[in-house]
Amino acid sequence: MKKTGIFNSEISRVIAKLGHKDKIAIVDLGFPIPSHVERIDIVLDFGRPTFEEVLKVILKELEVEQVILAHESSKKFEQIIKENIPRVEFLKISHEELKKLTNDVVAVIRTGDVVPYSNAILVSGVIF
Amino acid sequence: MKKTGIFNSEISRVIAKLGHKDKIAIVDLGFPIPSHVERIDIVLDFGRPTFEEVLKVILKELEVEQVILAHESSKKFEQIIKENIPRVEFLKISHEELKKLTNDVVAVIRTGDVVPYSNAILVSGVIF
Amino acid sequence: MKKTGIFNSEISRVIAKLGHKDKIAIVDLGFPIPSHVERIDIVLDFGRPTFEEVLKVILKELEVEQVILAHESSKKFEQIIKENIPRVEFLKISHEELKKLTNDVVAVIRTGDVVPYSNAILVSGVIF
Amino acid sequence: MKKTGIFNSEISRVIAKLGHKDKIAIVDLGFPIPSHVERIDIVLDFGRPTFEEVLKVILKELEVEQVILAHESSKKFEQIIKENIPRVEFLKISHEELKKLTNDVVAVIRTGDVVPYSNAILVSGVIF
Amino acid sequence: MKKTGIFNSEISRVIAKLGHKDKIAIVDLGFPIPSHVERIDIVLDFGRPTFEEVLKVILKELEVEQVILAHESSKKFEQIIKENIPRVEFLKISHEELKKLTNDVVAVIRTGDVVPYSNAILVSGVIF
Amino acid sequence: MKKTGIFNSEISRVIAKLGHKDKIAIVDLGFPIPSHVERIDIVLDFGRPTFEEVLKVILKELEVEQVILAHESSKKFEQIIKENIPRVEFLKISHEELKKLTNDVVAVIRTGDVVPYSNAILVSGVIF
Amino acid sequence: MKKTGIFNSEISRVIAKLGHKDKIAIVDLGFPIPSHVERIDIVLDFGRPTFEEVLKVILKELEVEQVILAHESSKKFEQIIKENIPRVEFLKISHEELKKLTNDVVAVIRTGDVVPYSNAILVSGVIF
Amino acid sequence: MKKTGIFNSEISRVIAKLGHKDKIAIVDLGFPIPSHVERIDIVLDFGRPTFEEVLKVILKELEVEQVILAHESSKKFEQIIKENIPRVEFLKISHEELKKLTNDVVAVIRTGDVVPYSNAILVSGVIF
Amino acid sequence: MKKTGIFNSEISRVIAKLGHKDKIAIVDLGFPIPSHVERIDIVLDFGRPTFEEVLKVILKELEVEQVILAHESSKKFEQIIKENIPRVEFLKISHEELKKLTNDVVAVIRTGDVVPYSNAILVSGVIF
Amino acid sequence: MKKTGIFNSEISRVIAKLGHKDKIAIVDLGFPIPSHVERIDIVLDFGRPTFEEVLKVILKELEVEQVILAHESSKKFEQIIKENIPRVEFLKISHEELKKLTNDVVAVIRTGDVVPYSNAILVSGVIF
Repeated sequence: MKKTGIFNSEISRVIAKLGHKDKIAIVDLGFPIPSHVERIDIVLDFGRPTFEEVLKVILKELEVEQVILAHESSKKFEQIIKENIPRVEFLKISHEELKKLTNDVVAVIRTGDVVPYSNAILVSGVIF
Repeated sequence: MKKTGIFNSEISRVIAKLGHKDKIAIVDLGFPIPSHVERIDIVLDFGRPTFEEVLKVILKELEVEQVILAHESSKKFEQIIKENIPRVEFLKISHEELKKLTNDVVAVIRTGDVVPYSNAILVSGVIF
Repeated sequence: MKKTGIFNSEISRVIAKLGHKDKIAIVDLGFPIPSHVERIDIVLDFGRPTFEEVLKVILKELEVEQVILAHESSKKFEQIIKENIPRVEFLKISHEELKKLTNDVVAVIRTGDVVPYSNAILVSGVIF
Repeated sequence: MKKTGIFNSEISRVIAKLGHKDKIAIVDLGFPIPSHVERIDIVLDFGRPTFEEVLKVILKELEVEQVILAHESSKKFEQIIKENIPRVEFLKISHEELKKLTNDVVAVIRTGDVVPYSNAILVSGVIF
Repeated sequence: MKKTGIFNSEISRVIAKLGHKDKIAIVDLGFPIPSHVERIDIVLDFGRPTFEEVLKVILKELEVEQVILAHESSKKFEQIIKENIPRVEFLKISHEELKKLTNDVVAVIRTGDVVPYSNAILVSGVIF
Repeated sequence: MKKTGIFNSEISRVIAKLGHKDKIAIVDLGFPIPSHVERIDIVLDFGRPTFEEVLKVILKELEVEQVILAHESSKKFEQIIKENIPRVEFLKISHEELKKLTNDVVAVIRTGDVVPYSNAILVSGVIF
Repeated sequence: MKKTGIFNSEISRVIAKLGHKDKIAIVDLGFPIPSHVERIDIVLDFGRPTFEEVLKVILKELEVEQVILAHESSKKFEQIIKENIPRVEFLKISHEELKKLTNDVVAVIRTGDVVPYSNAILVSGVIF
Repeated sequence: MKKTGIFNSEISRVIAKLGHKDKIAIVDLGFPIPSHVERIDIVLDFGRPTFEEVLKVILKELEVEQVILAHESSKKFEQIIKENIPRVEFLKISHEELKKLTNDVVAVIRTGDVVPYSNAILVSGVIF
Repeated sequence: MKKTGIFNSEISRVIAKLGHKDKIAIVDLGFPIPSHVERIDIVLDFGRPTFEEVLKVILKELEVEQVILAHESSKKFEQIIKENIPRVEFLKISHEELKKLTNDVVAVIRTGDVVPYSNAILVSGVIF
Repeated sequence: MKKTGIFNSEISRVIAKLGHKDKIAIVDLGFPIPSHVERIDIVLDFGRPTFEEVLKVILKELEVEQVILAHESSKKFEQIIKENIPRVEFLKISHEELKKLTNDVVAVIRTGDVVPYSNAILVSGVIF
């Protein structure tokens, strides 16, 4: 078996395909995922796993250069991201725009988070 | 959105299709899942979620009449199942036989559990 | 087998995928279902099951925040919905607009109802 | 729209393909449907529609020359079939054999019936 | 086997799916069928079966509320339709428009008819 | 459009693929067609087109070296074939064996014939 | 096997599906075939078979009412077509337009021809 | 475009996938090609291209270590192969066995050859 | 096996399909490959193989008439191309335009190159 | 983009799916890969990349508990593996058996290695 990095085989597969500027979304339990976009549902239950738990896993292998989130998200939500990706660039748009943008992401990872607006799009960076 | 029961859409879908005596497997991080069987990978990370966490979620909607597990599984593992499904019937076979039997299950749910032999097959019961 | 909630495996599957604002339609026997939309046909016979019977089943698991129906629908039809989803928000549009809107729903559930214009789109709510 | 006979589009499709001696199964809520066989799920809810309601619909278009059912089925179940298909030939096998035989049917129609062993295989007749 | 109505399994299947205002086309031997539309080819040979023979079969199960045909079609062709669907509403458009409209039908049934412009689109009615 | 030979596009396609000794079946209205075999349904209605009408069309393009039919077929049925393919070799087997053999044909062409046992397998010849 | 007309099974299949005004293209070795269009590659080698050899085969079964070719094609190329389809109507467009038009053909038949601009679109005629 | 070697894109693709001992077949116009095997039909017309013409093309890119052909093939046929692949190893089996063996080849290339038994299986060699 | 030219079976397949003016892209490790375009990933590791190594392989079989690259690419990068394809025509566009153009290529070949902007689109030439 | 471990997206995907005892094969340029097994072709050219180069990449993420190789492989080949996976268990079988065993691996990774018998099957270990 795989002995390092991300153990979820679907997330591992998606991240290995990402190029610079490609996007993936991490969303909460209620987010409407466009039917034509790949959905990776790792919900365990109501509230679990949280957005942050999933973000930490993804950051083991993914280079992130920008995070896009909704104005409606809480300060605490923003703080969570800053703590996990120091100095990352933020782009704030409306929740409606974020939903529209999700049509162009490579995949949506569904978490169990039930804090409203716990949704963000990670823009892949490049390591050279 | 769904307001009750199992929130993971893939697990929800699989359980709704099960008939009496149909089987699904819950397995640990290292279990070799036959390529022709549907795999639902809800691994968050090394050790998370555990077998028990996933079992509790499944039991919200699934009627279970028998649990098949390997001789090699620990006493504690068996105890976990008994606590969650009191009076359920147990069938013990070898780990090799359990792996063979996984070829006939409807789906395999992959957890992050890293306690060796944390694998079991749930045999669906009937409610009339 | 599943021991609670919605027993129809196709409806169960669809509802588990819905996010906030996602839509599903419940329609009568004669409704023209767009060929690219998923159709779940649970017609038993002419008149059976009715719109209301199907609505009651769906409401066991689906959070609904808005119902869209046609001006042409009868008062009685509206009343049926109010009795089953008290205080839900209504949006009325023309039958032609409702047909167009059905192109964007996640699935259409076909009933046997033969009361004209027994068609409605349920807009999924959110539970946090 | 179709103006006569069977209104359920999936059942209508399946019956139009049947040749002499081809088989379809009508089963209760808990029956384990083989994954490789086409399943038409018209369950409304727990107990509805019954086996008999579905049988009556099917008999509008399907010529039946034999009914295969399990020893374990009740007398009343057998009586239901006799009333609906007078003088039809019966073949009784064990429930386990019936389950095995379901692997060779053209489709399985899942009802909401919750009377145990409300399962039967209809063997298509010929009308010339 | 099916003991009544339409015996062709493909036509039977298509008609059972039609909703009010859905369209199917019956065309002659030379009609250019759009590649993305379902084609049911029941041509026996040059001239056989005729448009009328196929129309009579379809009318056994299909409720028709309107027929769309080309100006270029002959009076006799129109007369055939009137005899088979008395009092049906006619809509006449150009042959080119009819060809364009065929892109939106549910299916095209190809006959052997070799009378020029023996093409028509049947608009499904509703029976309640 | 095609200006000669077989006008039915599905039959034309199948015949163009046949090699020496490959088989196709022409069957009556009630024949049980194995689900894994390609079926070309050119049934117009009960009794139409007949086996002979379809045979004549096929013989426009197909070289036939042997015809396999059931003992149960009538003398008249055999005579029809002889008149259409003089000096062809016959192989007679039971109806049950003919049904089994249909599993290995390239395609089954379903006619409207309602004369019992109007089924035959044509074994393709070679023209050099 | 087939005993007359076109022996190539792919070309035979495509031609049998063409309706009046449907188009197929015959192109040279270097023609850029749009990826969404069906390509039938019967190239033997550099220069073989020629455009004319393939045209002659196609004309055994296809009724052609118009040929579309590029201004850039040689007089000799035009002459080849005239000899094979006397009195056919010609439409001349630019090579770039011809390439664009190839997006709408039913199929492209790739030859080995290495005479520049040996590409033409055949517009199917009708035989009644 | 490709500037060397084999110009037929389907043959080029197949040969690039072959490993040591993998087999492809070159067959005549009447050979019955198993439906589960990939068929590359480069027939131009009755007799064209010949087996030898196709063999010469394939040998531009394929290393061949053995040729399997039928006893029934002519001396001349064998001679053709010897001239094109000097010192290649021959394996002779019956035509029936050759047909059976074709079930295991990677692809069958259909030529127009009409000399009886112009069929051979090429066993791929290795170049290190 | 193949004994000459390009040994990678996926690249070999793609090149054999290219027509005049068709495009393929060779990109570096971080390039965002549009999900609808075919991707051939021959990355060995960080930096290996380089753009030039892959270019040399492709040029064994592909005729190139133009190379499109980004202004942002280094002089050295341009030099590499000139050395490998003397006298080829260059077209320079922005990196953003190059990314957009990649939506229309036949395939993208992903290398391990980690020199920024090591991306180019090869426009296929013609050899007659 | 991915910032660590294996950069080839196909190899990354396959390794993330492996369970304990699952197998993948690394093979040389001429190895015959069964058509039903997934093939990842990262051949650059004749001899490149070597077996060892690919092995080193894979070992970045894959836990290996056993290596299966052919008796016919050279001592040096075995030595390469020992240097890269000290203390790993070896299983030696014949080249023919190794080829048969390749039918059961999850994927075959094709290298450019041209040292005869540079083929091995890696048996995945487990890290708890």
